[in-house]
Amino acid sequence: MTTHARDFSASIDPVKLDRMAEVAIKVGLQLKEGQDLVLTSSIAALPLTRRIIEQAYKAGAGLVTPIFSDDEITLARFRYGKDVGFDRAAGWLYEGMAKAYGAGAARLAVRGDDPSLLSGQDPEKVSRANKAASIASKPAMEKITNFDTNWTILAYPELAWAKQVFPDDTDDVAVAKLASAIFSASRVNGDDPVGAWKEHNAELKKRSTWLNGHNFHALRFTGPGTDVTIGLADGHEWMGGASTAKNGITCNPNIPTEEVFTTPHARRVSGHVSSTKPLSYQGTLIDNIQVRFEEGRIVEARASKGEDVLKKMLDTDEGSRRLGEVALVPHSSPISASGILFYNTLFDENASCHIALGQCYSKCFVDGAKLTPDEVAARGGNKSFIHIDWMIGSGEVDIDGLDKAGRAVPVMRRGEWAA
Amino acid sequence: MTTHARDFSASIDPVKLDRMAEVAIKVGLQLKEGQDLVLTSSIAALPLTRRIIEQAYKAGAGLVTPIFSDDEITLARFRYGKDVGFDRAAGWLYEGMAKAYGAGAARLAVRGDDPSLLSGQDPEKVSRANKAASIASKPAMEKITNFDTNWTILAYPELAWAKQVFPDDTDDVAVAKLASAIFSASRVNGDDPVGAWKEHNAELKKRSTWLNGHNFHALRFTGPGTDVTIGLADGHEWMGGASTAKNGITCNPNIPTEEVFTTPHARRVSGHVSSTKPLSYQGTLIDNIQVRFEEGRIVEARASKGEDVLKKMLDTDEGSRRLGEVALVPHSSPISASGILFYNTLFDENASCHIALGQCYSKCFVDGAKLTPDEVAARGGNKSFIHIDWMIGSGEVDIDGLDKAGRAVPVMRRGEWAA
Ligand SMILES: [Zn+2]
Ligand SMILES: [Zn+2]
Ligand SMILES: [Zn+2]
Ligand SMILES: [Zn+2]
Repeated sequence: MTTHARDFSASIDPVKLDRMAEVAIKVGLQLKEGQDLVLTSSIAALPLTRRIIEQAYKAGAGLVTPIFSDDEITLARFRYGKDVGFDRAAGWLYEGMAKAYGAGAARLAVRGDDPSLLSGQDPEKVSRANKAASIASKPAMEKITNFDTNWTILAYPELAWAKQVFPDDTDDVAVAKLASAIFSASRVNGDDPVGAWKEHNAELKKRSTWLNGHNFHALRFTGPGTDVTIGLADGHEWMGGASTAKNGITCNPNIPTEEVFTTPHARRVSGHVSSTKPLSYQGTLIDNIQVRFEEGRIVEARASKGEDVLKKMLDTDEGSRRLGEVALVPHSSPISASGILFYNTLFDENASCHIALGQCYSKCFVDGAKLTPDEVAARGGNKSFIHIDWMIGSGEVDIDGLDKAGRAVPVMRRGEWAA
Repeated sequence: MTTHARDFSASIDPVKLDRMAEVAIKVGLQLKEGQDLVLTSSIAALPLTRRIIEQAYKAGAGLVTPIFSDDEITLARFRYGKDVGFDRAAGWLYEGMAKAYGAGAARLAVRGDDPSLLSGQDPEKVSRANKAASIASKPAMEKITNFDTNWTILAYPELAWAKQVFPDDTDDVAVAKLASAIFSASRVNGDDPVGAWKEHNAELKKRSTWLNGHNFHALRFTGPGTDVTIGLADGHEWMGGASTAKNGITCNPNIPTEEVFTTPHARRVSGHVSSTKPLSYQGTLIDNIQVRFEEGRIVEARASKGEDVLKKMLDTDEGSRRLGEVALVPHSSPISASGILFYNTLFDENASCHIALGQCYSKCFVDGAKLTPDEVAARGGNKSFIHIDWMIGSGEVDIDGLDKAGRAVPVMRRGEWAA
């Protein structure tokens, strides 16, 4: 390898990497005997990815097909590529993946990319390339977001990412610290990680069951800089932790996960809300976001940092000023307690209550799998090319559940579950 | 990376790697501005593959899509995979590649795999997996062998390969020696490798033009243990060096290449022939092959080593006992002069005159691109799932060109061009 003069995987506990691999296959995917697997990974994550594939075959995988990316190669495109190439995407590859999922393959992604990789590159080219990839990957992505098959995402402590999270540490120490934070959040510190996940899934299930029992019409968030009422979609369903895909397999699509979440009503959000943690978006940090909603739509938006990027994001399409997700995470959750900003949504969204601009999850409806896109929209589900989570929870935020008449039930007090 | 404790690319001259990358794009592919590229590579070859992709973008590539393999992952399948998986292949991926070539993408392969990777694994599983991959990749392979698009293959000195070629050297020295042999054979030692290739292509063109001018009916090889008359297909054409694909781009499909070659007549080969170098086939060495042909078909076959594997290979299908290629390489060619057995056809077939069992190249006919498979077969072109080259040339072999009446013209004497 030419990027790293040394092998940083030496700073990472191999026993815990083995446990991560086991959790990926047994908890994340619950891979079925004979099932094929399509796996994407950065080459930097090879020490984990090799272990995952070994676990997959041991668990009876049919054929595992890894598709690798490489940060240096991604960067070469932006550094040296001519203009003509930036509206292109490997449609043939995404179509193939969609076909594989359609034929029953499971899907696993190992994330370990430099969050700021493209921050020095021409933002217009980055945005064109992202748009082309979004369009080309839509058929494959829909099979995932619609839960046609079992899937999961987890993370590997890559050097560039570690250095962004721990800039003041040496390379070795930064990688070791990020590894330790990932292992802890992914619940692989104990001897029985599969058991720990069973327990954790039961706890999340208890919370979503309570929320579904109340069937609130809206949630009201109050705190410093925040007083917003977020209507919930008609027939919404709260989810969290394990999720059963249409192929009948119960998977944990995100490792880690701390949230219970549902679909807000795209036309019933009003009030103002302030972000409680910075948002890392395409290599730019957006901080101290303040927005005001009217009838579900953001009509005012400010940020102390990255405001131009925020506004560009809000102008992506029709649905990018409306909400597609509302999620509850207690302030005491392990990721929140770590105090680390990961610059990675997989972790940061699990540190705090959050909302997402853009596309909703159609599965967050009662019998969601059976709803047409028009039926989802009629119930208040939002539609957009983007889905961007940002944090609005803290130890100072209270949440009430409201019924249609406006009667309140405490849901969270000072960032913790009230019931 | 976990396989290698150290970074062996330090033993490889970076200037020559840069030149290899330049030759890959400017000579191997002659990549057209705006053209997309599908590239396959082992992860071990990353130092070269990254350079090639940089060169591709600098030359105006549209989008480069790399598909990586990893020896450890390949091995995990055979070590841990359950029986059910060995008849499977990633058909969706090969179909996608075929689609990309059909849409105009060029194709590049960087070889750098351990030649003995699967030698310790169950041969039946290896053969089932290979067969499944052959069948699934057929539509993509046909677009390549039919020259629908420009393509090339070149090699990277991977550690396990280097250790097989130079088993008595330390890891560092073995990699350095293999690198040096690859650079020399790939003609990147001088300051102007692109110019060196222009000269070399002109020399190969001169030879094929001379052979095409004579339009021999057959070639007769005589030497120790060899007296065989190999009929040439009706309307055959000799090729060598640069080749113009159907998209109009002139590429060098193999780097290195020293051969001029054509299609023999599948039903007009008679006599006996002995191999002059060992053949490395799926991790097994087959040595001292002796076969006898009658009316184009091998009716007797022996080998001092690997005879069972040879016989299994001959029984693959209808066409595996007949010839699909005959190629001429002077005994003084640089690869032959190096005296190295590379355990890799890309190199070993360029060390000596050779014949190939199995599938013929339809392009080795006058107007070959326009012939139907039936027309190719009627002219004597062979058909098979395999194409396996083995060496029959040496400094002691003479070759005559024969016309229909049996009149002889000297082609090679003691392994060197006679004219
Ligand atoms: Zn969320
Ligand atoms: Zn989200
Ligand atoms: Zn050949
Ligand atoms: Zn050949």
